[in-house]
Amino acid sequence: MQAARFYGPGDIRVEEVDRPKAENDKVIVAVEWCGICGSDLSEYSHGPVAIPTKPHPLSGEKMPVIMGHEFSGRILEAPPSSKFSSGQPVMVDPRLNCGKCLQCCSGHTNGCEKWGFLGLSGGGGGFAEMVAVRPEKLHSLPDSVDLAVATLLEPLSVAWHAAALSGLSKGNCGDAAALVVGGGPVGASMIYVLRAWGMKHIFVSEPNISSECRQRTNGMGVDAVFDCAGSQVALDSAIGSLKFRGSYVNVALATPKLALPCRTMLLKELKVTSSLAYNDKDFSEVVEAFVSGQFNGVEKMVTGRISLQEVVQEGFEHLVHQKDKHMKIAVSPKVQK
Amino acid sequence: MQAARFYGPGDIRVEEVDRPKAENDKVIVAVEWCGICGSDLSEYSHGPVAIPTKPHPLSGEKMPVIMGHEFSGRILEAPPSSKFSSGQPVMVDPRLNCGKCLQCCSGHTNGCEKWGFLGLSGGGGGFAEMVAVRPEKLHSLPDSVDLAVATLLEPLSVAWHAAALSGLSKGNCGDAAALVVGGGPVGASMIYVLRAWGMKHIFVSEPNISSECRQRTNGMGVDAVFDCAGSQVALDSAIGSLKFRGSYVNVALATPKLALPCRTMLLKELKVTSSLAYNDKDFSEVVEAFVSGQFNGVEKMVTGRISLQEVVQEGFEHLVHQKDKHMKIAVSPKVQK
Repeated sequence: MQAARFYGPGDIRVEEVDRPKAENDKVIVAVEWCGICGSDLSEYSHGPVAIPTKPHPLSGEKMPVIMGHEFSGRILEAPPSSKFSSGQPVMVDPRLNCGKCLQCCSGHTNGCEKWGFLGLSGGGGGFAEMVAVRPEKLHSLPDSVDLAVATLLEPLSVAWHAAALSGLSKGNCGDAAALVVGGGPVGASMIYVLRAWGMKHIFVSEPNISSECRQRTNGMGVDAVFDCAGSQVALDSAIGSLKFRGSYVNVALATPKLALPCRTMLLKELKVTSSLAYNDKDFSEVVEAFVSGQFNGVEKMVTGRISLQEVVQEGFEHLVHQKDKHMKIAVSPKVQK
Repeated sequence: MQAARFYGPGDIRVEEVDRPKAENDKVIVAVEWCGICGSDLSEYSHGPVAIPTKPHPLSGEKMPVIMGHEFSGRILEAPPSSKFSSGQPVMVDPRLNCGKCLQCCSGHTNGCEKWGFLGLSGGGGGFAEMVAVRPEKLHSLPDSVDLAVATLLEPLSVAWHAAALSGLSKGNCGDAAALVVGGGPVGASMIYVLRAWGMKHIFVSEPNISSECRQRTNGMGVDAVFDCAGSQVALDSAIGSLKFRGSYVNVALATPKLALPCRTMLLKELKVTSSLAYNDKDFSEVVEAFVSGQFNGVEKMVTGRISLQEVVQEGFEHLVHQKDKHMKIAVSPKVQK
């Protein structure tokens, strides 16, 4: 089958690879669409970052690996005992986790000691015609769903998890205010999630916004900041925007070191935390919210639909060099160029 | 009356000043004992830090101010309408707050926009024979209490507040483990508070402890770290000691900038927060816990008792230059040299 594999920075090759095998109860999913994620771009620009250079403890694979972890598809082949039937549309939770460590056993599967992702850590990926997936990672979708839009369930799960970590809860944040720093795909996902949770006061900005946020909240500041940019400037202005005991949640890829403005943190007793992907509960809740229409207008986030053959030139290259033109590009092995 | 006033770094003078007046419902407290706090030492060594050089918005005073904010005493003069009677032993909550701002009205009196402390911000202080105190800041104590030990109620309130901020709660942390970094007066207060809360697994160290903590918690790490040291080394080893979703609480004076180890924070979804003094509830609960004997052995923290005349040579100078010999020195205007 055709698949896009990562060989190094600037070197992703669409090439012929072996089809995945339906071993160990795994289900073969025929990929319909796969989104290009910011983490894919960072691998393309200066990777390998998360892509393993020695065998990953769960997949046993290392570079070159098939990329793409935001993917939907249809069941192609399922074990007879499976609840899935051929042709059924599904969304894949792409996380790899051991299921045995302390974090997995406590429900914090996102903190698995061996964690990885299909599409980054080996085991197949969404920039391919097919992927073998563990059945518990499959979420059934109704036939009516646009499967290109469904790929957004993955970044929406990232946002959902961050919202929960901030201390807000669904249906209980009508009076709360939040600032989303960074207006890329994760920032946009945050907005859709907070709206679905009932929040009315959402501010969005590129960095530098403290005084505006305080002014628009009668001098109080916002309850939560979701930093989807992750720079020092973003942290500093985020901290300045928060009210007493507010929460700063870093949803950006980890900047190696950030300087903590300790005096402001102390005077406002702020909480600083980082949000790591999502857990099983988050993903299921996001699928449910999506299917029941709670992410109104979210389809606008998909700004491009291209074929697998075009993934490098029309996908990665566009997102790196013309990033203001696109929010999320979906890639399909079923579309012909 | 005699009082110790701050004139600049290394310059605290015991001198004759006017007696405070019982205006605006204030109660005159005759000081029995006042502890020397780490923040007093930082003023003495390189102040003014928190001591105002222009009139403080609540006290109207500036340098030179009377120092000392960890003080107990007896009622000397109370308005007729007051519930206090002459000679009654009391502990003073030394905080100044406006009572009108958003934080004060939300119960976060420690976050008052104008906040200050008796003994630092003007309005009198505990290194003096008498102080005029607002009646709502007075906590009655039984006659049986050693008033030198009672001065510890102030640092114990700091610790109590930090414990609450970490997410732990009284009576509900028998299975939890904590690391206290820094074994000075605040660190020791943390231990007494966590014990009073029912915690069985408390580790204490100077910085550098990560692997030991993980080993002694079966590889899990501790639930909470209380950093009473506040250096970069302390932060780094604290972060390494925490379990998934653990809390790091900075109870030290604010180091201007600390570098946040973002990758570890992300992989363990840690929470970082700073604890600012204590609020009304904390102080009341600490008095109650103290009077009912929940801080078993806490009197050992008072390692010296000196007269007001000796406050500089036997107090500040000892704590700065022979700090390993002392935990907490209590000063009294009633003891003669």
